[in-house]
Amino acid sequence: MTEPFVHSRPYTIEWGDCDPAGIVWNPRFFGLFDGATVALFTAALGMKKAEMLKTYGSAGYPLVETRAVFHAPCRFGDEVRIDSMVTAFRRSSFDITHRLFLGDTLAVEGFETRVWVGRDPADPERIRARPIPTDVIERFSRAK
Amino acid sequence: MTEPFVHSRPYTIEWGDCDPAGIVWNPRFFGLFDGATVALFTAALGMKKAEMLKTYGSAGYPLVETRAVFHAPCRFGDEVRIDSMVTAFRRSSFDITHRLFLGDTLAVEGFETRVWVGRDPADPERIRARPIPTDVIERFSRAK
Amino acid sequence: MTEPFVHSRPYTIEWGDCDPAGIVWNPRFFGLFDGATVALFTAALGMKKAEMLKTYGSAGYPLVETRAVFHAPCRFGDEVRIDSMVTAFRRSSFDITHRLFLGDTLAVEGFETRVWVGRDPADPERIRARPIPTDVIERFSRAK
Amino acid sequence: MTEPFVHSRPYTIEWGDCDPAGIVWNPRFFGLFDGATVALFTAALGMKKAEMLKTYGSAGYPLVETRAVFHAPCRFGDEVRIDSMVTAFRRSSFDITHRLFLGDTLAVEGFETRVWVGRDPADPERIRARPIPTDVIERFSRAK
Repeated sequence: MTEPFVHSRPYTIEWGDCDPAGIVWNPRFFGLFDGATVALFTAALGMKKAEMLKTYGSAGYPLVETRAVFHAPCRFGDEVRIDSMVTAFRRSSFDITHRLFLGDTLAVEGFETRVWVGRDPADPERIRARPIPTDVIERFSRAK
Repeated sequence: MTEPFVHSRPYTIEWGDCDPAGIVWNPRFFGLFDGATVALFTAALGMKKAEMLKTYGSAGYPLVETRAVFHAPCRFGDEVRIDSMVTAFRRSSFDITHRLFLGDTLAVEGFETRVWVGRDPADPERIRARPIPTDVIERFSRAK
Repeated sequence: MTEPFVHSRPYTIEWGDCDPAGIVWNPRFFGLFDGATVALFTAALGMKKAEMLKTYGSAGYPLVETRAVFHAPCRFGDEVRIDSMVTAFRRSSFDITHRLFLGDTLAVEGFETRVWVGRDPADPERIRARPIPTDVIERFSRAK
Repeated sequence: MTEPFVHSRPYTIEWGDCDPAGIVWNPRFFGLFDGATVALFTAALGMKKAEMLKTYGSAGYPLVETRAVFHAPCRFGDEVRIDSMVTAFRRSSFDITHRLFLGDTLAVEGFETRVWVGRDPADPERIRARPIPTDVIERFSRAK
């Protein structure tokens, strides 16, 4: 995957995203990144998440680990852009990087490791890691 | 119901509850009231919500309408108390009042109208209003 | 004010807006309405909130009371539209109505009463109700 | 620092913390950790954050980086415990670890790197890294 598909999403910082210091409260960035991951998959696969779950018999892609590095604060009214991409597909897990820009400034970076899961046939209440469908990986490599 | 059961819940305002004006962002009060309603039912019925749903074949008590009146702002670190009570039980709907106190000051009042629902036997994906079980109302009247 | 200026704002329901019942958690609607009020003022006045505060020597327009009526649930991925308008300007307070539509269905209505405030000259830590500037009301009446 | 001071905080997972999969939505863990850091400092220093800022001429301890590892999901009504400790004090930055337990199960780990800041004397609108006061570090080493 030499040149991953990048999905860009604009966002304007809301009053309720910010804390008494006047800057975005850190958990909100993880909320924005969570939404950006959904938007990345929607754009790359050409279908909404509900359809994706049905098409691939998936139960989603829960987070295993996530990390954010804060370079510059964002404030109420700031117009930011989140660039999201899958940086690695493995057998059943994959990595996502989010870069949140304020103008030309890289303000926040987010890194997620997620795992592709399905219902356990023996116990549908439980989920289990599943190989990422080839078709999913191919759609990402063809997306632009 | 001459003297409704009142459940009190302490809470310390968190940094993330507050906005750039340094006061609690209004949607957070509705979050606190939502949690206080769950705690009120847990205390009055003597069982957690999951058990309540099973015991009464209920699908919950979604909001029909809610309102809040803001008398005084709350700030990071403030230790508040939420007094919650059912003020009216009707056939399938009921009213809740929350009073949030900062010391002796009534800072915020919340009013909820909720409806008791169950799964529609003809279509379990749908919910329908159901009569509030007599046992639920009796437990509230006996609670103290 | 026979025909108030209506500002429309599209929004796609995010995963994190929804609760275990699969529908939007009620406090999130108040968050969406709060953002819609900011967007309404930005559109009507032709300036962002930070500039508005400076232009009119304002300290904002805190909520006095808010209410929501829930007609139909919204779910993850739903594309909704929020129509916002000022329905009454009084001396120092005003009313806003938000109508959240899911397709043609009116899903949620929100009603806010806010008060226009400024810093107290005698004690800049305190805020006091102030007459709404005529220019603000005029810009709303001219907006389209 | 051979045996860091550990502050424990109980928490009951609320309905609004959970997503349509019925488990805690990941950004909420960062919210819980943020509150746990405040509680850790309050317990170790023997003063609330507002007093801390005044006592040390501090402007807070913003996040530089944060990470969470998710081992097991948490659900509505789960009673969890967050154990928080400072694992390293450097000149002006420090590390915090949070361990969130569900019974005996380590469900989520959180790692924060924060920096101690003060107002820039040349421009009070700006903040700058400052050496962590010796008294702060000593109070942590004496806390139990």
